[in-house]
Amino acid sequence: MKVNMKKTKPAQKHSKKAGLPPGTLIHVGEKRLEAVRISYIDYDEQNLSQKQVSNIEECFPLKTTPTVTWINIDGLHEIEVIDKLGKQFELHPLILEDILHTSQRPKFEDFEKYLFIVLRMLSYDGENQAIEEEQVSLVLGENFVISFQERIGDVFEQIRDRIRNAKGRIRKMGADYLCYSLIDAVVDSYFTILEKIGEKIEFMEEKLASDPTEKTLQQIHKLKREMISLRKSVWPLRELISGLQRSESSLISETTDIYLRDTYDHTIQVIDTVESFRDMVSGMLDIYLSSISNRMNAVMKVLTIIATIFIPLTFVAGIYGMNFEYMPELKWRFGYGIVWLIFAVIAAIMVIYFRRRKWL
Amino acid sequence: MKVNMKKTKPAQKHSKKAGLPPGTLIHVGEKRLEAVRISYIDYDEQNLSQKQVSNIEECFPLKTTPTVTWINIDGLHEIEVIDKLGKQFELHPLILEDILHTSQRPKFEDFEKYLFIVLRMLSYDGENQAIEEEQVSLVLGENFVISFQERIGDVFEQIRDRIRNAKGRIRKMGADYLCYSLIDAVVDSYFTILEKIGEKIEFMEEKLASDPTEKTLQQIHKLKREMISLRKSVWPLRELISGLQRSESSLISETTDIYLRDTYDHTIQVIDTVESFRDMVSGMLDIYLSSISNRMNAVMKVLTIIATIFIPLTFVAGIYGMNFEYMPELKWRFGYGIVWLIFAVIAAIMVIYFRRRKWL
Amino acid sequence: MKVNMKKTKPAQKHSKKAGLPPGTLIHVGEKRLEAVRISYIDYDEQNLSQKQVSNIEECFPLKTTPTVTWINIDGLHEIEVIDKLGKQFELHPLILEDILHTSQRPKFEDFEKYLFIVLRMLSYDGENQAIEEEQVSLVLGENFVISFQERIGDVFEQIRDRIRNAKGRIRKMGADYLCYSLIDAVVDSYFTILEKIGEKIEFMEEKLASDPTEKTLQQIHKLKREMISLRKSVWPLRELISGLQRSESSLISETTDIYLRDTYDHTIQVIDTVESFRDMVSGMLDIYLSSISNRMNAVMKVLTIIATIFIPLTFVAGIYGMNFEYMPELKWRFGYGIVWLIFAVIAAIMVIYFRRRKWL
Amino acid sequence: MKVNMKKTKPAQKHSKKAGLPPGTLIHVGEKRLEAVRISYIDYDEQNLSQKQVSNIEECFPLKTTPTVTWINIDGLHEIEVIDKLGKQFELHPLILEDILHTSQRPKFEDFEKYLFIVLRMLSYDGENQAIEEEQVSLVLGENFVISFQERIGDVFEQIRDRIRNAKGRIRKMGADYLCYSLIDAVVDSYFTILEKIGEKIEFMEEKLASDPTEKTLQQIHKLKREMISLRKSVWPLRELISGLQRSESSLISETTDIYLRDTYDHTIQVIDTVESFRDMVSGMLDIYLSSISNRMNAVMKVLTIIATIFIPLTFVAGIYGMNFEYMPELKWRFGYGIVWLIFAVIAAIMVIYFRRRKWL
Amino acid sequence: MKVNMKKTKPAQKHSKKAGLPPGTLIHVGEKRLEAVRISYIDYDEQNLSQKQVSNIEECFPLKTTPTVTWINIDGLHEIEVIDKLGKQFELHPLILEDILHTSQRPKFEDFEKYLFIVLRMLSYDGENQAIEEEQVSLVLGENFVISFQERIGDVFEQIRDRIRNAKGRIRKMGADYLCYSLIDAVVDSYFTILEKIGEKIEFMEEKLASDPTEKTLQQIHKLKREMISLRKSVWPLRELISGLQRSESSLISETTDIYLRDTYDHTIQVIDTVESFRDMVSGMLDIYLSSISNRMNAVMKVLTIIATIFIPLTFVAGIYGMNFEYMPELKWRFGYGIVWLIFAVIAAIMVIYFRRRKWL
Repeated sequence: MKVNMKKTKPAQKHSKKAGLPPGTLIHVGEKRLEAVRISYIDYDEQNLSQKQVSNIEECFPLKTTPTVTWINIDGLHEIEVIDKLGKQFELHPLILEDILHTSQRPKFEDFEKYLFIVLRMLSYDGENQAIEEEQVSLVLGENFVISFQERIGDVFEQIRDRIRNAKGRIRKMGADYLCYSLIDAVVDSYFTILEKIGEKIEFMEEKLASDPTEKTLQQIHKLKREMISLRKSVWPLRELISGLQRSESSLISETTDIYLRDTYDHTIQVIDTVESFRDMVSGMLDIYLSSISNRMNAVMKVLTIIATIFIPLTFVAGIYGMNFEYMPELKWRFGYGIVWLIFAVIAAIMVIYFRRRKWL
Repeated sequence: MKVNMKKTKPAQKHSKKAGLPPGTLIHVGEKRLEAVRISYIDYDEQNLSQKQVSNIEECFPLKTTPTVTWINIDGLHEIEVIDKLGKQFELHPLILEDILHTSQRPKFEDFEKYLFIVLRMLSYDGENQAIEEEQVSLVLGENFVISFQERIGDVFEQIRDRIRNAKGRIRKMGADYLCYSLIDAVVDSYFTILEKIGEKIEFMEEKLASDPTEKTLQQIHKLKREMISLRKSVWPLRELISGLQRSESSLISETTDIYLRDTYDHTIQVIDTVESFRDMVSGMLDIYLSSISNRMNAVMKVLTIIATIFIPLTFVAGIYGMNFEYMPELKWRFGYGIVWLIFAVIAAIMVIYFRRRKWL
Repeated sequence: MKVNMKKTKPAQKHSKKAGLPPGTLIHVGEKRLEAVRISYIDYDEQNLSQKQVSNIEECFPLKTTPTVTWINIDGLHEIEVIDKLGKQFELHPLILEDILHTSQRPKFEDFEKYLFIVLRMLSYDGENQAIEEEQVSLVLGENFVISFQERIGDVFEQIRDRIRNAKGRIRKMGADYLCYSLIDAVVDSYFTILEKIGEKIEFMEEKLASDPTEKTLQQIHKLKREMISLRKSVWPLRELISGLQRSESSLISETTDIYLRDTYDHTIQVIDTVESFRDMVSGMLDIYLSSISNRMNAVMKVLTIIATIFIPLTFVAGIYGMNFEYMPELKWRFGYGIVWLIFAVIAAIMVIYFRRRKWL
Repeated sequence: MKVNMKKTKPAQKHSKKAGLPPGTLIHVGEKRLEAVRISYIDYDEQNLSQKQVSNIEECFPLKTTPTVTWINIDGLHEIEVIDKLGKQFELHPLILEDILHTSQRPKFEDFEKYLFIVLRMLSYDGENQAIEEEQVSLVLGENFVISFQERIGDVFEQIRDRIRNAKGRIRKMGADYLCYSLIDAVVDSYFTILEKIGEKIEFMEEKLASDPTEKTLQQIHKLKREMISLRKSVWPLRELISGLQRSESSLISETTDIYLRDTYDHTIQVIDTVESFRDMVSGMLDIYLSSISNRMNAVMKVLTIIATIFIPLTFVAGIYGMNFEYMPELKWRFGYGIVWLIFAVIAAIMVIYFRRRKWL
Repeated sequence: MKVNMKKTKPAQKHSKKAGLPPGTLIHVGEKRLEAVRISYIDYDEQNLSQKQVSNIEECFPLKTTPTVTWINIDGLHEIEVIDKLGKQFELHPLILEDILHTSQRPKFEDFEKYLFIVLRMLSYDGENQAIEEEQVSLVLGENFVISFQERIGDVFEQIRDRIRNAKGRIRKMGADYLCYSLIDAVVDSYFTILEKIGEKIEFMEEKLASDPTEKTLQQIHKLKREMISLRKSVWPLRELISGLQRSESSLISETTDIYLRDTYDHTIQVIDTVESFRDMVSGMLDIYLSSISNRMNAVMKVLTIIATIFIPLTFVAGIYGMNFEYMPELKWRFGYGIVWLIFAVIAAIMVIYFRRRKWL
């Protein structure tokens, strides 16, 4: 069963731990997995070892090897795992808190010995037509990257493939390049989301043109909200990556800096697209509202035309329905015919008037 | 009896003292307590003493002890207390004025010997469904923190617990960490408020979808105003904390700086959420307005349909209600039946027309 | 007779002197006084002399005395007075022009030997329900402050009292503190104006809720315009005061700098309040518009209900008003009763339908 | 015949020369004059010579004299004139291009040996009720100023007077002061334009209050567009003048810097006023729209009241117009009187109901 | 057959390659050409050689010659061509990726040995009334410029002419001037687009005034979207060119810097115009909406007038259509005449009332 992240408000999550001493490890997200899944990939240009371990301690020896190590943790509800890892890798308690407290906005912090990066990974849940969000925390140290995810399933599969098959540069480069690749994969996945939203917008616009209903309005507003939430994930990313670039940390080599510049460009592109989408969505709202008022106009016009034609006619008919004794017209031989003529003339005048005012 | 802070406008408070010499001590808020309540906690890693005193002088010896001292004042209407304290701790008269003048926006000032911090503590009054606001002023000196509150009841209870039970780091750290903890508690309490508002927004949205009334509109506007007021408390906080971090005051240790960075992140998160809420609330306004106009449309359509069907029919009936002597149809054997046929045909044409235009 | 400042547009004033050589002394405001009134207060900690003089030359000897001198000029239409003063105190011709040309925005200029400050003093004219504006120019030199006002009546009376009665610090401090006090008095007076506006807003909101008329709309717009004009006076003030603080002029002592910081805080508070008020006023506009459209809805509903109930009934009555010879129902014993039954059934169906759609 | 500048869009002008090598001299504005008019004023404190020349070469000897020379060119369609001048005074080809290409935004460029300034001179064409725009280019060199205008007629007449009559400082100062005077004259002329717009706004507001028509709306939008266009001329001016002030060019003396500061203040004032006007104009739009919907409301109310009163009455009359044989009321002695009573009661109930709902 | 670029969303293009290793060469745009077309121009002040080659290797010897070489590639789908070129000219893999991945936003990157520039070339497709977009990538090295385009046809024809005919400066200057010329040509072509849009806006405004239909609304929204898309191309350009100017690359001479300043001014002008257009387009939306509601008003008024005049008349006629036995008026000699009088009086009162309220 899938979970709609949108429902769990950051504020709600946060208030669970209000008042506790800072650095207290409490997992504030939903428990999404039965068991925490720990796996690692350890590689250099020649060698590669890869394993799913049941015990976090198995990963500890890798910390000091010269090879690049990528430890991935899926599931955050077993606090002891995070705690042990934190102690072994000398992570600051606030870092551990941020990892568990899965409503962080994307950010980057430099702790000299390691860099701490928080990202928000998005995926599109086709079934519920909703965007799902998940916090990914990365710790980049000398020769190792540790990634923390809330649940199984991520956008890193192709990176694992590249490492396994020694495709591209990845096996020749250090942990910083691995870390860059992970960030890049997350940013790249945003384009998939944007594509979905773009399709939705196109679909909605066609619907707006053909048949706008009150439901359309609700969908526009849902879209608008998705944009608000997307923005919250995307904007801080820009800061994050430019922060990484500007940081003078020795952990990031100059070669990787060039790649980060590329990711930065992608981020800007994502932001640009999100902003354009926002503009389009508010344009859709305008169209909706004016098409509604256009419809109302059309309805009103029909009423007006029918009513204004027949009301005078009915009045005329009413006159000759009166029972006065002395109504000479009633006796006329062609009175009835003349009345029909009057009906025709009045109706014709009305129709011509409406034609002239372009209402007909 | 609870007081609705929203009603006391800052401008109103301020004008009470317009024209007085700066540094004049006048309490401009409401008197919310019978007697001022003074209490202190004095601690280091091993020892702890805690007392509620009736006379402010009892606290003065603590100023010079090497232990960390937290003096808390609840109630600001006894000016002599503040005055004596100010003299003893060498506080600038303007500081004392700001403490008493409880409509300050959050700010931070560095007076070398001590730092002065103003915060706005929010709490949610469930009964009146309103957010209550209270100014908390903090003075951080070498080994002491003095906190000033307008009334009894605060968000610091858990900090007192932690000090008493030596939970977390707090007993091992200095006055700067205590001061950080107080700020953090205030920021954390904002999440509780945001959660309440989030619930309100959700509730309102459901109501909007099911049954929007004029009262809903007023509630939306009340919410909007609460956001305006919340923003005023939250935005300056960001500046305050980044100011604290950037200050080169010797009163704040580097360790505490890292914790402040964490609080800064929380503040950004609060601001982000407030801004998203604002966007949502204005979205609600749009929905309200368009649902109102949709309703109007529905009403108009019914009128149009009924009127445009029956007006021509009534006209036809009117024709044969005329009293002309020579109206051959009246004499026809099946005249009446034919008229019914005409009625049916006109009505059918109308209904088909409406169906085609999708109004029915 | 009071003058409504709002009417004299800056542009209008300015264009009076377009094309004249810069530094030409022409008074471009309205002449508001019969005679220019000149007075001075000269004081140090022990002594005080105070006089209203008829001749500006009487003030000149005070320029070189070590005591603090405050020369106040009410009325700007006697150009020779300003000219003589300017020559004696070596003021730049552009300064004199700015003093006379009373549509300056608040600003601060540093001329080394003296500082030039322009403020806008606001007062509330209860009779016309309008905010009145007046330019106050200050020149702060070594040991003297000269203030220029357009007319008699200002917010400095309490400062004069403090000097006379040696209240507060003012007699012990220099001319810079006096100058600060004048600025602070102007900023403080803004709070009184804000309070009045706050009351108006509250009053308007109540009226909006109970009985919104077209006049209400005009009052909202008047309020909106007052906000626009208030903003123009208040925003530059912030720059002005932060400019004063940042200036490295030897004329402002460090002690006074702390006081200016306090005034800066007040300015920010004024700006915050103005911005909140703006938000509230546009909120009111929304409420007005939607309450108008709600009313329209209510009117429409009544029309619809009455019309849609009676139009079909009238049609039925019309049928049996026809004069066909062969209308069997007319002959039925209970025809008339049955028609009444039909009336009742149609009406009942309609009412039930409206109830179900919640229009009744 | 006057030309309405608004019609010639910058884009249109520019595209005329798209693709030509940069620095190609082509005049892209309209040819507004028969012959180019060249004149100069050459002066120092004692001497003054002034002449209208037919041949640009006559001005060349003035370049090296120590006196201040002001060469003014009216009309830009004779490219050779500009070309010769450019060669003699060693102006960069791009400068010449910018002079001819009269759709530049206001800007300032420092070429060491001379400064290049582009301004937009506005004038109000009372006949067409439109603002006319013209590019004025200034070149300030050591001892000379060259000004280029598109046609005869400018705001510099009073400066010429001052030079001729040795009024003010101008004859005692250098070319930089002359250049400042020209800029100041242009900025001052904006106030005249703003005054005209201010009058228009006031006139429009009165019209809005008394009798808003569709034409009013179009006028509001025309005003709005004028603001958009005015803004485009005014905003870059601020940058221009602050650029001039900050430039460390030796061509501008410190004395003139103080005067530029004054002009800068005026520019800010112009910008402030333009922004306030923009706010007012959008306020007017709101008033217009709501007054339109208020009117609609009034119309609807009358319809509703008349219709809802008479529709039931007509129904009652219809009942007794039916031809049933057995309608006992018809035979009653006071039947007709009772029906009138029923009419009166129904009408009264309706009127009371409308009164109670405040629709009458 | 022309392709409407607008349809291929950046997001869509990008997602094609999500997850691939960075630097992987995949062309993500549409294949727009059968064969890639490669051509070069090689020149210095005296000599010129120009050729269309079928094999990219033919261009390689030109890299080291002292003459300026301009290699132009039309069509990007043959990856080997780009790949070979990249290797020969030592371009970074990410550059090649950006060239092929044709949804880059305009940007500039400095790789010391060469500069990489991405532009978006716009052209107006008269047939489909749509703006077409194409990515142009430039590589500026020591003595060479390589340009990459998606398809045949560009705005550079006049530059080729100038080189061939040695018009202007171009043959005397280096590769940096050539590169500047290409950028300038792209920026200049924007003015042509703006002119087209300006014409459209003018056309739309006239249509709005004369006959606004629902189609007009859709066209306004199309225009609005074109502005959104245009903005996305234009804004980053500003950054790009100012980046080029500020870069301290030895590849750009000081002379060319002055020309870039000129291009920068043009860019600002383009941005200004785009922003003005945006303002105008939203103004048009306002006009549309209010003209729609004005029309509705007009329709409503006619209905109201006709209905309110005839409804009471019909009621009166209804009264005398009643069949009461004792209705004395029916027997009166002039009853019928009096009823006509009553009709006339009621109608007259109504008409006068409507006249007074200015509805007629």
